[in-house]
Amino acid sequence: MTSGLIFTYRPPTLLSSRARELRLEIEEFNSEYCAVLDANRVEDWPRFFTLDCLYRITSRENAELLLPVGLVYAEGKAMLVDRAVAIARTQMFAPRYMLHLVSNTRVLEESAEGEITAEANFLLLQTLVEGATSLHMAGKFYDRFVREHDQLFLKERQVVYDTTLIANDLVYPV
Amino acid sequence: MTSGLIFTYRPPTLLSSRARELRLEIEEFNSEYCAVLDANRVEDWPRFFTLDCLYRITSRENAELLLPVGLVYAEGKAMLVDRAVAIARTQMFAPRYMLHLVSNTRVLEESAEGEITAEANFLLLQTLVEGATSLHMAGKFYDRFVREHDQLFLKERQVVYDTTLIANDLVYPV
Amino acid sequence: MTSGLIFTYRPPTLLSSRARELRLEIEEFNSEYCAVLDANRVEDWPRFFTLDCLYRITSRENAELLLPVGLVYAEGKAMLVDRAVAIARTQMFAPRYMLHLVSNTRVLEESAEGEITAEANFLLLQTLVEGATSLHMAGKFYDRFVREHDQLFLKERQVVYDTTLIANDLVYPV
Repeated sequence: MTSGLIFTYRPPTLLSSRARELRLEIEEFNSEYCAVLDANRVEDWPRFFTLDCLYRITSRENAELLLPVGLVYAEGKAMLVDRAVAIARTQMFAPRYMLHLVSNTRVLEESAEGEITAEANFLLLQTLVEGATSLHMAGKFYDRFVREHDQLFLKERQVVYDTTLIANDLVYPV
Repeated sequence: MTSGLIFTYRPPTLLSSRARELRLEIEEFNSEYCAVLDANRVEDWPRFFTLDCLYRITSRENAELLLPVGLVYAEGKAMLVDRAVAIARTQMFAPRYMLHLVSNTRVLEESAEGEITAEANFLLLQTLVEGATSLHMAGKFYDRFVREHDQLFLKERQVVYDTTLIANDLVYPV
Repeated sequence: MTSGLIFTYRPPTLLSSRARELRLEIEEFNSEYCAVLDANRVEDWPRFFTLDCLYRITSRENAELLLPVGLVYAEGKAMLVDRAVAIARTQMFAPRYMLHLVSNTRVLEESAEGEITAEANFLLLQTLVEGATSLHMAGKFYDRFVREHDQLFLKERQVVYDTTLIANDLVYPV
């Protein structure tokens, strides 16, 4: 699957009033998305995606070099479901808490078909039980949204992290 | 006092247009609330609460087990005022700076009586004078707001932190 | 140049509906501003300022004591351009990634001439290549905006940081 996303700066191309409306909607989408993950309800996570979605977690270096590799790479909702089930079963994530902070949401484009290109910055904090809170991952969401039944769904989410030290073998979604 | 709050994920139950309106209002409330605390004006802090308020700071583990304990527990505005005066007098907080970042605000419910249930994620940074900035506390606000004279007030704020290492004996409000 | 900014808490003085409108606009401004910096496009950074702008990065201690000193001090857009060119040429910043998170935006005043006074909290993360992500700087933007051709521009940005340990000699803009 080819991604239409660009991992460098580009200015918005839509009217600012429309960008405002979509920005607020996407903020609400991301708050809901993160609340599900932070509550450790990983099996509920695939519902935010379209059937033919693309989901990847990769480093900024890889993204900028347009390398297709990633820490996580999933094509299609079925792969997200498999992944979610695997994580929920192994429960390796029970003894830690996750907390997302999302900000700087930018809407860049809206196509004639209603596909929306957007970005946001995130900070993911991890707290080990009986331990301290650390910066687990920080980076940007590069997203393409589509609307179905008046709700937004992710057709593509590329989680591009600045942080280069990731400890987990089986990575929890971001 | 019994709290009606639930410390696990639940989806919003109100119309998204109404949730939007309230979300923006609560963001502005929290920005004001945090600006007061970050400016070290702790004696001004109780004004954000109702007379019969409940305020608690507790760990995520305690909250999820529904344990009533907490690092800080205050029932009624008078207790907040006492606490604020005590902190202001001891001035143990003068040699440090606090900075709140609040994001991911979600509005979950609005009752027929106008009581609003909402959540937000926060990051509290602390900088010791001549020292480095550290992640002091990260977690969620679980809130119930009521409206009086067209302004929001906190009837309940449960500050539930992921971070488990808290150094201070006399805890500054969050 | 004298700055009309005050580095302590003060409540907003404008109507909340107008503050809302301006807050959303300033959030969008800051997201764009940060996206440019985080993409390492420092030469594009001066375009956010007016010709007669004031830009300073200083510590909270200096700001509160009203000391005019700063880590960075620039009067007029020409000085920002010089600075941007110098940074771009030395390219000392290539081997690190920056990521801004901005939140808690507050609009305090709007003058009869349309000058807007506002604040926001920021967190600036730095990731060294092959290294970990660290809290590089955390603090507040104290801003004055003016509108030209229906767009906002910074007449003044005072970046006031809580963090007191800054390693760089030639400081990248914040």
